[in-house]
Amino acid sequence: MNNLGIVKRNISRADKAAVDKLSRFGVATIHEAMGRVGLMKPYMRPIYNEARICGTAVTVLLQPGDNWMMHVAAEQLQPGDVVVAACTTDNADGFFGDLLATSFKARGAVGLIIDGGVRDVKDLTEMNFPVFSKAIHAKGTIKATLGSVNIPVVCAGAQVNPGDVVIADIDGVVVVPADVAQQVADASEAREANEGDKRAIFASGVLGLDYYKMREGLAKAGLRYID
Amino acid sequence: MNNLGIVKRNISRADKAAVDKLSRFGVATIHEAMGRVGLMKPYMRPIYNEARICGTAVTVLLQPGDNWMMHVAAEQLQPGDVVVAACTTDNADGFFGDLLATSFKARGAVGLIIDGGVRDVKDLTEMNFPVFSKAIHAKGTIKATLGSVNIPVVCAGAQVNPGDVVIADIDGVVVVPADVAQQVADASEAREANEGDKRAIFASGVLGLDYYKMREGLAKAGLRYID
Amino acid sequence: MNNLGIVKRNISRADKAAVDKLSRFGVATIHEAMGRVGLMKPYMRPIYNEARICGTAVTVLLQPGDNWMMHVAAEQLQPGDVVVAACTTDNADGFFGDLLATSFKARGAVGLIIDGGVRDVKDLTEMNFPVFSKAIHAKGTIKATLGSVNIPVVCAGAQVNPGDVVIADIDGVVVVPADVAQQVADASEAREANEGDKRAIFASGVLGLDYYKMREGLAKAGLRYID
Amino acid sequence: MNNLGIVKRNISRADKAAVDKLSRFGVATIHEAMGRVGLMKPYMRPIYNEARICGTAVTVLLQPGDNWMMHVAAEQLQPGDVVVAACTTDNADGFFGDLLATSFKARGAVGLIIDGGVRDVKDLTEMNFPVFSKAIHAKGTIKATLGSVNIPVVCAGAQVNPGDVVIADIDGVVVVPADVAQQVADASEAREANEGDKRAIFASGVLGLDYYKMREGLAKAGLRYID
Amino acid sequence: MNNLGIVKRNISRADKAAVDKLSRFGVATIHEAMGRVGLMKPYMRPIYNEARICGTAVTVLLQPGDNWMMHVAAEQLQPGDVVVAACTTDNADGFFGDLLATSFKARGAVGLIIDGGVRDVKDLTEMNFPVFSKAIHAKGTIKATLGSVNIPVVCAGAQVNPGDVVIADIDGVVVVPADVAQQVADASEAREANEGDKRAIFASGVLGLDYYKMREGLAKAGLRYID
Amino acid sequence: MNNLGIVKRNISRADKAAVDKLSRFGVATIHEAMGRVGLMKPYMRPIYNEARICGTAVTVLLQPGDNWMMHVAAEQLQPGDVVVAACTTDNADGFFGDLLATSFKARGAVGLIIDGGVRDVKDLTEMNFPVFSKAIHAKGTIKATLGSVNIPVVCAGAQVNPGDVVIADIDGVVVVPADVAQQVADASEAREANEGDKRAIFASGVLGLDYYKMREGLAKAGLRYID
Repeated sequence: MNNLGIVKRNISRADKAAVDKLSRFGVATIHEAMGRVGLMKPYMRPIYNEARICGTAVTVLLQPGDNWMMHVAAEQLQPGDVVVAACTTDNADGFFGDLLATSFKARGAVGLIIDGGVRDVKDLTEMNFPVFSKAIHAKGTIKATLGSVNIPVVCAGAQVNPGDVVIADIDGVVVVPADVAQQVADASEAREANEGDKRAIFASGVLGLDYYKMREGLAKAGLRYID
Repeated sequence: MNNLGIVKRNISRADKAAVDKLSRFGVATIHEAMGRVGLMKPYMRPIYNEARICGTAVTVLLQPGDNWMMHVAAEQLQPGDVVVAACTTDNADGFFGDLLATSFKARGAVGLIIDGGVRDVKDLTEMNFPVFSKAIHAKGTIKATLGSVNIPVVCAGAQVNPGDVVIADIDGVVVVPADVAQQVADASEAREANEGDKRAIFASGVLGLDYYKMREGLAKAGLRYID
Repeated sequence: MNNLGIVKRNISRADKAAVDKLSRFGVATIHEAMGRVGLMKPYMRPIYNEARICGTAVTVLLQPGDNWMMHVAAEQLQPGDVVVAACTTDNADGFFGDLLATSFKARGAVGLIIDGGVRDVKDLTEMNFPVFSKAIHAKGTIKATLGSVNIPVVCAGAQVNPGDVVIADIDGVVVVPADVAQQVADASEAREANEGDKRAIFASGVLGLDYYKMREGLAKAGLRYID
Repeated sequence: MNNLGIVKRNISRADKAAVDKLSRFGVATIHEAMGRVGLMKPYMRPIYNEARICGTAVTVLLQPGDNWMMHVAAEQLQPGDVVVAACTTDNADGFFGDLLATSFKARGAVGLIIDGGVRDVKDLTEMNFPVFSKAIHAKGTIKATLGSVNIPVVCAGAQVNPGDVVIADIDGVVVVPADVAQQVADASEAREANEGDKRAIFASGVLGLDYYKMREGLAKAGLRYID
Repeated sequence: MNNLGIVKRNISRADKAAVDKLSRFGVATIHEAMGRVGLMKPYMRPIYNEARICGTAVTVLLQPGDNWMMHVAAEQLQPGDVVVAACTTDNADGFFGDLLATSFKARGAVGLIIDGGVRDVKDLTEMNFPVFSKAIHAKGTIKATLGSVNIPVVCAGAQVNPGDVVIADIDGVVVVPADVAQQVADASEAREANEGDKRAIFASGVLGLDYYKMREGLAKAGLRYID
Repeated sequence: MNNLGIVKRNISRADKAAVDKLSRFGVATIHEAMGRVGLMKPYMRPIYNEARICGTAVTVLLQPGDNWMMHVAAEQLQPGDVVVAACTTDNADGFFGDLLATSFKARGAVGLIIDGGVRDVKDLTEMNFPVFSKAIHAKGTIKATLGSVNIPVVCAGAQVNPGDVVIADIDGVVVVPADVAQQVADASEAREANEGDKRAIFASGVLGLDYYKMREGLAKAGLRYID
């Protein structure tokens, strides 16, 4: 019953075409396309403003104050993967720094999502290695206790299965289950299609009240205008 | 791909014998028996100190400020169930009060775990209906947007599938997947077997250092005694 | 333009009959009767579970670490008043203890609502003087800087004007503007009238789905039942 | 008694000259000029560092997870207005994004202050539309429940009436009641007049102890110098 | 330079007479007698309301998720000691439960102050073993990394040296350095001497404004009474 | 016994050579060189990303809402000092702005570490005066109550003695006791010596698993690879 101390080697990654397509859309759009679910909590923030990630998840379950499993995870990485690291408890220690980033990058990883702390932020920024984390903290970690790699994890309030697509930008982090990646990519595309038009319409002064035909609904709900 | 607006009627509940056995153990013991995983975050607190729950999960995914799905969930309850309510975003509104508790109780539910707020706490306490929540808040809710019932949810940091066993006491809330419920119950029993002995030994003044034979390990790790 | 350093002596308190009537209802009921507004934030908690307050507000604006104005407020208290203390900044110091409580009680005050800390909680509990606060903290305060008494304040997220009715119980704290106190009391009464009936109905097993006739609305919203 | 479901069309905006004058000063200066009151809580942060706002408030009271009223507010905007959005409960959903910003901008609005979340931050930054918010969150909202527009609101701990002047910069957000806007602008000017001089004096090495003649007061208070 | 991996055996405990005398006073009184310093942060709460501690500190520095040092500390305990446990980082895991409590009690310890989590709260309450902690959390810990025992620690914002007196009650936790324990005890006694009188005076309706002769100071500070 | 109201003039600053050497290393490196201790809490953040400090501590103990002692501290500053300001309670008011910064800079101070708020952040950034703080807040302070200068303080969870070396960069803030400054500097240098090599090795694709020879330890701990 215990799913600790496990490394799953063969995981089923989302289809590359779907991942590529998803990489064209923002987190807000994708999350809407999924029915407004799949977001991590908003305390997950990029270590630099331009950070952006779209990749397939290699998951890690960490123990507090211990980054042993990050090294184990490195070996499982394939080009296009993003490491998604959860912890068995709330802990903001600096589980990740420039050396691990160098190693992840060498394996082709495109970024890190971690419900914990990171350090060496200046180096990571210079390396242009995107990280979304709960905290920045210099606190070092040890290598003593087993967690797992590539088991389902809960990271910052979102369920993540290995192989899922994870997209992160300044608006947050969203998880797209592998088996619906293509559908969500298509829905995102559809959703975005008329955004440019809408922006032009609103820029011209048309109100959402009229464009979305909200006046009747508001009146029915009882909205009263007074002077 | 959208798992909102769904009510799953037939769920596979954990075996009753396993649930009954698990009900004999505390949350700390069960969590240890599972390898120190499965806990919700410690902000989940009982509304009264004696609250205790052990039941099979009927899950609910709520929308912020909206408790429509709680009414939908009521119909799916069977005796021995515990309602586990998550929300699509952080929200502490009072989704639950004495009337819903009356309804849940009439269906045989044994309690509520909610990553949100509850109200009518005086009544709930008098009814002896155990609730573990993130907050107590009088804030009322509406009934306007669909969530789901009996889909997998993340509640207070823990993944919960419908039918899982959820145990809650003053130490917190733990989720035992239905398919390992019996194993975990057995492991909990084994773990608890010698607790009484241990307590007597420590009460007599024997140190954990000696009982657990820690001295050698500590010395090897470099522990120095100074005066 | 500066409203610091002011004590307003003559304030218009809500009608006593309205206050008395409001005292019969819980915070959740009153807040609903007002249209789901008027609540303080849920971090405001009673120092003991049975604490309950219903009175007319004498407001205080404190400076951080300074309880001078609490003494000034004492003189403005009339029987039936509740002191509502806000602070110019977030501060959890212990602005209030057993001596001030004794003084407030001697003036006829029925309790304290404070967006800050209190101390001497054991004494306050034994005196049965109800307090709702943001924190319990032994930290002492000084008497050096002017705030104000009986000016409009924002306390724990709610606007409070002197003379407003403030009701507090284990579900939270609600503020009823003086000029609508009677209306809100009446609406609360109407709301509570059929609660007893409802409870009996739900206890008998009738579902909210049927009692509130929700099934059609849910179906129209697209709710799907699956097996 | 219910102030929900209301849109007030004619509001009395602060005098334009006063607003213009206030726009020359920083938030810290204005708040001091008012006697150290009027600030929102420091969790309100700009979405980009250079964001700066000075305008007259059009207020919005939102419901959790629902941005319907933002569209209603758009119609009430006049050039020079800033939207100040509060919520009936704590909620960090993304109530606002690039399309609403386009609409607000088309109406002449100069920015948004929101005790909630926003999204499309990259677009907002590129549009140079200043926003101060509690959170950045991709979480989408619905349009189902009435709030109000242009009623008094409490936003991030500050009372805001429609027409008040709201100034925001990297130090925070301050609210100046419309009827004292000119006085506060004048007091701010007076306060700032000798700042340049002071800076030169302190740069030359003169101590505040001497410049502000603090030594006597400190000695009287009992300050002891030891070696 | 490294003070990890150390156990100091001979510590200088505060004088027993001073400890005994301090045990007669509340935390608020003692903290005032010290000049309003020495308090831990208010997030430190008793696990049951009646918990009260006064003892000499045996300090522990824990590593996150690791309670090895608690066992090491047990051996250093003498009757009248209180264990004060800090952690090298923020961590709310359940470092302490009924077995350790049994062991500590067998050594004569009078309680635990821990800037972390505890579990088995029902047992601890039945044992009447007082604990003040940051959290209650069932999360188990390991025994893998060295911390220290009886080095100076920062616990919940307060500096604690081994042998210091630590007093805890429902108002919080205060630390009295061993070398001033007698002085502080005497000052606490002096402070409390006339509290009974004061309470009677305030109960009779005398105002603090008059008793403390505040009116002149308030007037001088500019307090204005308006009608 | 009271250590409030004290200014210690002669403090023993860490050796300049050691300070200079420490200035070459990052906070993460130094903290590791000390055995993973000495860090302040991660809520301490720079007001601008490039902020970096290395200097000898002049400590200040502030009272809430009161910055009087900052002026007293200014006189005690020598070139190369960093002001480390703690507060007797949690308070985020803006204790520090551009005028004090000008004064501190004139005395040769190299930065400020404050467990509180600061303001005039735009000016401070333009002055290139580095500050690490808990908050940015325009809230002004008064000058009424004594704290102390150059006594030991607890700042953001770290013990700081006057004269200690404090290093701050984007990863956080670390405190190096004066008497071990040279040792820590040497250990930091040793630690950093082979970092460049390591980075090259990891960049070439060598795994930490192999470089650090972790495979055996992991296997012994029970790590299982599954497909």
